[in-house]
Amino acid sequence: MRVMLPEIKELLSTRQKRMVRKVVSYFEPADIAEAWSEFSHDERLKLFNILDAKFAADIFEFLREDQMIELLTDLPTAKMISVLNEMSPDDRTDLFAALPTEEVEKIIPLLDADEQKRARELLAYKGNTAGGLMTIDYITIPENANIADAFRELRTRGRDIDFVQNIYVVDKVNRLQGIIPLKDLLTATPRKKVQRVMDSHFPNVGLEMDQEDVARIFEKYDVASLPVLDKIGRMKGVITVDDVIDVIKEEASEDIYRFGASEVTEQYLSANPISIAQKRVIWLIVLAFAGFISGTVLEHYSYLLANIVTLSFFIPILMNTSGSAGTQAATVVVRGLATGEIKLRDIWRVVRKEFFIGILMGIVAGAITAMRAVIMQGDAALGLTVAIAMIVAIVIATSIGGMLPIVFKKLGVDPALMSGPLIATILDTTTLLIYFNVTILLLYRFG
Amino acid sequence: MRVMLPEIKELLSTRQKRMVRKVVSYFEPADIAEAWSEFSHDERLKLFNILDAKFAADIFEFLREDQMIELLTDLPTAKMISVLNEMSPDDRTDLFAALPTEEVEKIIPLLDADEQKRARELLAYKGNTAGGLMTIDYITIPENANIADAFRELRTRGRDIDFVQNIYVVDKVNRLQGIIPLKDLLTATPRKKVQRVMDSHFPNVGLEMDQEDVARIFEKYDVASLPVLDKIGRMKGVITVDDVIDVIKEEASEDIYRFGASEVTEQYLSANPISIAQKRVIWLIVLAFAGFISGTVLEHYSYLLANIVTLSFFIPILMNTSGSAGTQAATVVVRGLATGEIKLRDIWRVVRKEFFIGILMGIVAGAITAMRAVIMQGDAALGLTVAIAMIVAIVIATSIGGMLPIVFKKLGVDPALMSGPLIATILDTTTLLIYFNVTILLLYRFG
Repeated sequence: MRVMLPEIKELLSTRQKRMVRKVVSYFEPADIAEAWSEFSHDERLKLFNILDAKFAADIFEFLREDQMIELLTDLPTAKMISVLNEMSPDDRTDLFAALPTEEVEKIIPLLDADEQKRARELLAYKGNTAGGLMTIDYITIPENANIADAFRELRTRGRDIDFVQNIYVVDKVNRLQGIIPLKDLLTATPRKKVQRVMDSHFPNVGLEMDQEDVARIFEKYDVASLPVLDKIGRMKGVITVDDVIDVIKEEASEDIYRFGASEVTEQYLSANPISIAQKRVIWLIVLAFAGFISGTVLEHYSYLLANIVTLSFFIPILMNTSGSAGTQAATVVVRGLATGEIKLRDIWRVVRKEFFIGILMGIVAGAITAMRAVIMQGDAALGLTVAIAMIVAIVIATSIGGMLPIVFKKLGVDPALMSGPLIATILDTTTLLIYFNVTILLLYRFG
Repeated sequence: MRVMLPEIKELLSTRQKRMVRKVVSYFEPADIAEAWSEFSHDERLKLFNILDAKFAADIFEFLREDQMIELLTDLPTAKMISVLNEMSPDDRTDLFAALPTEEVEKIIPLLDADEQKRARELLAYKGNTAGGLMTIDYITIPENANIADAFRELRTRGRDIDFVQNIYVVDKVNRLQGIIPLKDLLTATPRKKVQRVMDSHFPNVGLEMDQEDVARIFEKYDVASLPVLDKIGRMKGVITVDDVIDVIKEEASEDIYRFGASEVTEQYLSANPISIAQKRVIWLIVLAFAGFISGTVLEHYSYLLANIVTLSFFIPILMNTSGSAGTQAATVVVRGLATGEIKLRDIWRVVRKEFFIGILMGIVAGAITAMRAVIMQGDAALGLTVAIAMIVAIVIATSIGGMLPIVFKKLGVDPALMSGPLIATILDTTTLLIYFNVTILLLYRFG
């Protein structure tokens, strides 16, 4: 797309409408949408005015929300409505959800009667449920029909639907009885009853199911689409896998952000730094107050530091290494909980495992640190103290790091909120306590 | 599935083969695979021996790798081969990739002639490329055929293929000319040439394209499947979106693990703790050596700590807060680079933004810490020193945290390797340097 941009821009400026339509039709809607920011405001409006409503709607669906809203505001009303009429109902609902309610209430009455009904129906569902993800463009056929009837229905209705993979067989009150993949429809004889061809065991999702659970069902059954049923089994919509990909990505982003003690920012580059700072600083304040506790521990044991100044040299490395070991354990457990590999009942298995991992890693890290104390400070007693403190601190770190995300989940809190920085902060205090107490036991008493 | 387990187990023990087949057929293969670990080794073998090869293969594809290998090893050779013949070629290739080469070379000659050819073809591609993801089960039709021919081909070949969404139109040397969605095939008149119905602009992927790029193309075009072409445009295979979901999930997991300074562990719960510890400890050693630098900084300025013991109380909170602020910035940038929102050329935009965010957050965190100094130590000069050090440290932290992942990516290194713990460790040194130098400038000179 980008290579042709100068030509398209020139054609737009000389108002060669037929040529613009022709050239643009060579590209995928997604490609044109990707190059959208390279067009000026005027060029965007001109382009939309020239293109037919169907192609314009195809491009529109791939635009970012702010780009959609710009067009909605500045296009002539008639054009805007024709594009909205052509949009797939589920994408249109997502757009409506981003607009103020008054705005939506002004737009809906201008749509075609059919589309008005669909828009209102979909707006009734929450965005993060199966109802909010599904499309209501799908083909049903009564259970007493035959294959030829199904073909006829497909020929009539198929044109308006972007993605047809299955035909849904329903009873008189619209309860889903079975599914016929298009492929099976094609290979069946026309006189056969649909009931004899349909697959009557099919995975499905409930209308109010959370979108993350919907994603998990898609992953489990490896399917390209799933029917959405209400509580008594009536067909309400279809979710296709491309909508689920967005859910899976959003979910992963959310976990990553939370785990990094940041909050989700949809558009980082275009967001206001003040609003980003506001979101992040809350975390930082929580961590700062947690950090005061380690300051208080230091204060309490300051007589040790005053007597043996070399002790303080090892504070950063001890805090660091235990914080990192705790973060490592928490990372694995947070992800394991997210993918479903680790269940709540596995808590003691995880703690036992992390305890053992902690011992192994503690011995290695302790030996390295002890060597530094011996080489740089020439103090074997200090080396032994630091090594023992390191081993204990890392064992505690991996055990706590593995346990806390599961405890959070048990309490109904998102385990990813038990972030790396939070775990590191908690472990600072335990590490200092361990260090000073090991010092008192070994170095201060016998040193 | 789980509710019926006792009944199925009983039927298996009393060898009521017909009943087992009937009861099991009520469940989805994915459900049976999910309950696999509830069956004993003997029951698994019995069940596979009773089921017909097609249904057994459907279940087999949903099993974990270790469960597949268990069956491969212990099933009678004839049964095993019939299951492998029925498997979809791409899933079979993934399984072969997990087996020793000698093993695979023993198995392949036992397969049906057709399947042998397919297996060898697919094994030639690398697992993490488009070639490794694709299936070679798809339907092509010559460009001079008409719609009726396409139907005929579909009826003949469609039965053996799980997921048919499109028919691919190719020229004499198998170069892809266009795509016909099944839906369009159904609504076209039989005499029409396929060339007049096909869509000749279609997104596609190259045979050697990296799987992460393949995933990005799926996301961009919102499609359910994509054709795979070789360098001169010949049709080689088809990738369906369900295989891409696994790639997206793997990719997110990899980022999360790396960012938490852990390495990817496929099966955490069943993995040996020693091998987990080995993977993690390498990171910990790197971080420990980096931590020595901050120890050396402390040593260098120890005369300050010896004179003003209260200074040390604020070391944990300064290190902590700046480490957390740096992790926050890095988290957002690592994820932004992964989703493609942030590009390499945005580096200075990111740094400017993070600099400003750092000032805002620094003022808040600095004020809180100063208050602590004034209230607990009753020392306003110390409060001022700590506050200024905090502001400078956080500004440096957010700027470096935002910059380093982009620098890593520029150098061709995975930005997620610039993990939270690594950034925190780097920032420990800068924070201590800032703290001691601010102290010398303000407190020590004028205090």
